[in-house]
Amino acid sequence: MQTIILNNKPRLVSCASIAGKKENDGNMSEFFDAIILDGRYGKKSWEEAESEMQKDAAFMVLHKTENKPEDISFIFGGDLLNQCMGTSFGITKLNIPFFGIYGACSTFCEGLILASMCVDGGYGKKVMCTSSSHFCSSERQFRFPLEYGGQRAPAAQWTVTAAGAALVSDSGGDISITAVTPGKVIDLGISDASNMGAAMAPAAIDTIKTHFKDRGLKNNYFDMVVTGDLGKFGYSIAKEKLKEEGVDLSNRFYDCGAMIYKEEQDAHAGGSGCGCCASVFSGYIFDMLKQGKIDRVLLVATGALMSTTSAYQGNSIPSVAHAVSIERVRK
Amino acid sequence: MQTIILNNKPRLVSCASIAGKKENDGNMSEFFDAIILDGRYGKKSWEEAESEMQKDAAFMVLHKTENKPEDISFIFGGDLLNQCMGTSFGITKLNIPFFGIYGACSTFCEGLILASMCVDGGYGKKVMCTSSSHFCSSERQFRFPLEYGGQRAPAAQWTVTAAGAALVSDSGGDISITAVTPGKVIDLGISDASNMGAAMAPAAIDTIKTHFKDRGLKNNYFDMVVTGDLGKFGYSIAKEKLKEEGVDLSNRFYDCGAMIYKEEQDAHAGGSGCGCCASVFSGYIFDMLKQGKIDRVLLVATGALMSTTSAYQGNSIPSVAHAVSIERVRK
Repeated sequence: MQTIILNNKPRLVSCASIAGKKENDGNMSEFFDAIILDGRYGKKSWEEAESEMQKDAAFMVLHKTENKPEDISFIFGGDLLNQCMGTSFGITKLNIPFFGIYGACSTFCEGLILASMCVDGGYGKKVMCTSSSHFCSSERQFRFPLEYGGQRAPAAQWTVTAAGAALVSDSGGDISITAVTPGKVIDLGISDASNMGAAMAPAAIDTIKTHFKDRGLKNNYFDMVVTGDLGKFGYSIAKEKLKEEGVDLSNRFYDCGAMIYKEEQDAHAGGSGCGCCASVFSGYIFDMLKQGKIDRVLLVATGALMSTTSAYQGNSIPSVAHAVSIERVRK
Repeated sequence: MQTIILNNKPRLVSCASIAGKKENDGNMSEFFDAIILDGRYGKKSWEEAESEMQKDAAFMVLHKTENKPEDISFIFGGDLLNQCMGTSFGITKLNIPFFGIYGACSTFCEGLILASMCVDGGYGKKVMCTSSSHFCSSERQFRFPLEYGGQRAPAAQWTVTAAGAALVSDSGGDISITAVTPGKVIDLGISDASNMGAAMAPAAIDTIKTHFKDRGLKNNYFDMVVTGDLGKFGYSIAKEKLKEEGVDLSNRFYDCGAMIYKEEQDAHAGGSGCGCCASVFSGYIFDMLKQGKIDRVLLVATGALMSTTSAYQGNSIPSVAHAVSIERVRK
């Protein structure tokens, strides 16, 4: 079975998010813990700003939970930048044993899966995961110099400037990670880097179907099934196709990328990046769980595993989606 | 405690390695399972060749152990290329749930740690890890076009063209992963990308010292303590400094990067890359274990977590080292 049931119900104790100015102008503004109004965040480069954001998100979680870095067994972290420099340069300052992970925009859920298995198995009492993205560092690396002002395709997504961090622990609170489904890499041959939602949708569909089937769940089990950043087009594809295949999620189905910006913000198909799902979950969705407005969420972050080199070489876009079931448990 | 003792003693059942022509001319020739004599390996790019190597190493392990891809619970894989494209394009063809990891040249040990915790905790019966590097894809990405023929500094290392794969299982054979030490990110301010051995040595020293201290081991406990790819200079630094700090490993201390090439092969300080430790361990060291020539090995892969962007921006090189204790157990 692809889905793993976590019998010891590791607790998702706390989350923190930090986001940029455009994100603060969007739909999720009130849920972020902190906002950076200057994209450089007082640093000399966008890349260093991203590292600082990820480090600060981690420190905010430590602060909220009254933990010190030495209380944390280890940390799973990743980002979109080459060789994950957004993570390694920030994480250094925490002095916590570190596992670097790369799952493109699926990174936050990959981290949650690994952190929750580690806690469930007793390998660590408190394990963190972090991820980040930054519009400017991503544009520089993947697309055009910002100064060039390249025009964007309608299906393109806007890389979110944000970082999120979460703490999984063997006790604390009533919100638990109950089951996880690590995804398979799926490649249906889509090669349009301006339509990554379409490339990632098949991975999301596969992982969601598998999760429901493995656990024998009814379509209305979760209050929310939330994909990471399929964007408007990928979201529509996934919703329709899942319905066709018997998983009709109707008005329980959401996408972080489609939710984060307002229509008038000109973000085209929506947000993307490791920081999108990380900040929307750590802000809005975790807040809804904490407040008791919802009890069961399936978070399914999706990642497009391509690079500029693979795109130049004419390759398609392999994708992956990792699912994490987060539920309120009786104490 | 930073070191995790694996009480259920997950077995390291099988390994496979595949390497390039220069590696075949080196010291480890007889231990590789397969050699690619053409750097393109029948593909249209070096990057695709690297993906093919990693996929083939995984298939060789499946073949040796008479497993099919569907028998494997999941796979941890990574490489040096931007967005880990060496891994994702190969792994797609396996159709196994996938966790992408990034630890630069420490990736193979990072994968072994996570795979062994997953098996030990009962989250998967059979878990694989893979990693790869390719001289040509790395030179193109990190350094100069090959055609330019840039001169190399004496402390520079040669990126190994190789891939390795390993299968960790809940049973089979008498070689077990007994304890693991995930490393902290350590940055002592070294910024010379032509001397990564010096940048990584402090991480190796920290992780090795921690492993010995956490388990209360004597300096002669292991038959071999093998770092990933410190190269000649980093190896000397680590050996001397460890001795100074009370962990005198004398003639039990080795380095995969320093061992892989012959002196006359003009590889300067030695080999490096995710494929170096992966292929030397999967070939030579695992063979020594299987044959009963040695019983206890501490494998400590080291990674330099920098990118070309971080180097251009004048940053130092944060490093990490992950340790895996592999021992023969009574059946």
